[in-house]
Amino acid sequence: MVTGCVWWDGDMALAADATLGEAGEFGLISQLVSQFSEWLDTDENVLVGPGDDAAVLRIKHGHVVVSTDLMVEGRHFRRDWASAADVGHRAAAQNLSDVNAMGGTARHLTIGLAAPAELPVAWALDFARGFAEECASVGATVVGGDLTRADEVMIAVTVLGQCTQAPVLRSGARAGDVLALTGRQGWAAGGLAVLGRGFRSPRVLVEAYRRPEPPYGAGREAAEAGATALIDVSDGLLAEAGHLAEASGVAIDVRPAAFEIPDPLQAVGAALGADPLQFILGGGDDHALLATFPDLASVPAGWQVVGEVTEGEGVTVDGGTYDGPTGWTHF
Amino acid sequence: MVTGCVWWDGDMALAADATLGEAGEFGLISQLVSQFSEWLDTDENVLVGPGDDAAVLRIKHGHVVVSTDLMVEGRHFRRDWASAADVGHRAAAQNLSDVNAMGGTARHLTIGLAAPAELPVAWALDFARGFAEECASVGATVVGGDLTRADEVMIAVTVLGQCTQAPVLRSGARAGDVLALTGRQGWAAGGLAVLGRGFRSPRVLVEAYRRPEPPYGAGREAAEAGATALIDVSDGLLAEAGHLAEASGVAIDVRPAAFEIPDPLQAVGAALGADPLQFILGGGDDHALLATFPDLASVPAGWQVVGEVTEGEGVTVDGGTYDGPTGWTHF
Repeated sequence: MVTGCVWWDGDMALAADATLGEAGEFGLISQLVSQFSEWLDTDENVLVGPGDDAAVLRIKHGHVVVSTDLMVEGRHFRRDWASAADVGHRAAAQNLSDVNAMGGTARHLTIGLAAPAELPVAWALDFARGFAEECASVGATVVGGDLTRADEVMIAVTVLGQCTQAPVLRSGARAGDVLALTGRQGWAAGGLAVLGRGFRSPRVLVEAYRRPEPPYGAGREAAEAGATALIDVSDGLLAEAGHLAEASGVAIDVRPAAFEIPDPLQAVGAALGADPLQFILGGGDDHALLATFPDLASVPAGWQVVGEVTEGEGVTVDGGTYDGPTGWTHF
Repeated sequence: MVTGCVWWDGDMALAADATLGEAGEFGLISQLVSQFSEWLDTDENVLVGPGDDAAVLRIKHGHVVVSTDLMVEGRHFRRDWASAADVGHRAAAQNLSDVNAMGGTARHLTIGLAAPAELPVAWALDFARGFAEECASVGATVVGGDLTRADEVMIAVTVLGQCTQAPVLRSGARAGDVLALTGRQGWAAGGLAVLGRGFRSPRVLVEAYRRPEPPYGAGREAAEAGATALIDVSDGLLAEAGHLAEASGVAIDVRPAAFEIPDPLQAVGAALGADPLQFILGGGDDHALLATFPDLASVPAGWQVVGEVTEGEGVTVDGGTYDGPTGWTHF
């Protein structure tokens, strides 16, 4: 949990509005760790938790899934658009979803927090609590981390998970497979569009953006059902379909008619003068799962068939080019 | 390796002075991954490497050691004080050392890079190469990561390692133990002091700062020799001794006479009008190892006895209070 340590002069009584600078690194680390201990204390696979040079974990199965993500304030989240707890839930969900997208089960996470000295301690603690709660919802625990000062708030998360069967990669889609989706799709993008215009409703979409509800467990379910390729929709459905197509050396056609556009998205589309389908085809952040299956019969209940895999390359919509937004870029 | 993806329009021919903004996320990720592939290709324990939602690793033994560190430009490194490759070596060394400090062996790392669009691609690639080379020096490989845009350069590293015996924690020191050190100590701090004054020599110290040479393998050696507590010196020898004392519930006395002050540190002390001992007692960044052993007979060759463990609390120097710098703080 610790790097860049200093002498710590014991427990500090902190004002409710104390900042990280006032708390000091060690005072804050101690409090952050306490946000995780409720779950750590009962996790028999954490042999050594936060506080030493490294955590020590017992891995029962032989294959470990590992993924890392960065989130930067102003780019991946805004403190005025979501509470600290919301940002914690989102940061955890994004990483837990990566393990879901391999067909695995998340077990342990580390978290690095870089922040200005002016950041309120309460924000950091609420963030940590939300993060730990999201992890706990899938039985995963926070086993360590790091804390440092920076000009902007940045969150670095690494998740470790396990696969009880072969992981499902992006590269296994074959011509003739069907494309299927599970989980809410486009809701978070609708919420983000609303927030971007300064509104706070439809509330259900704003909440979907603030606290995504990835279909945890559906990745493993897809793997057991024989999914040939699997990815989570972090950046946009068509963008992710493009990743599957490229990694698998196939073409993918998406059928917009397969999507029932929920009422709140219709309302946002009408209010913003936008085609609500663009939230579904271009939106990410819900962390839905997109998979290919060898045939219709193997698609599990709760998954919706939204397209097909053919020979060729690239992604089409109803056989043609889609000229709406398909995702977003970092540079 | 990927989050926040966009359509990638194929290989790009990049100018030698191209920036991250010009390269685009995917163009750069592809090139970054190529810095690691030389080693990944022969690592039989990496079942899935960069490019999917997560990496998949085969873990042969049951206990996994995991640690995370953040490095921020201007705070943990400066681009005008060290080359990109140097920063890569340092970032890797810092994390590999955390596994060393548990008595473990580093196996796999993930790396997150946040950077402004203006960062030269060449810097990122040289950094990645240096990072991978340092990992390769201990047989560890880079299995994934993330790349995003931020106002400042930030590096987030997570390392996974294994212990073939019980990990050595910070909390096992007992009164009567001897305190011992292995690895260069104070050299990097001397180099940093020199750079801070605008000088570039003694070159051996500047190089020690730019590319630390942690005593890899000595942690496992200490564990096998029966070390009771173990920590790496990242932040200052006395600060780390303080962590051992606090975690173990003991007092530690450090004996400065045990240290032979190398000529370059004597020269820097004379040039800067500083007691060269302060670099040894207060300096970090060499990633030396500090351990306690039950008796003199169990201290392995190559380790230097530098103090003793007694009942009580806190750290003393020759039985008294030390008023020099003992480490540094992040907030």
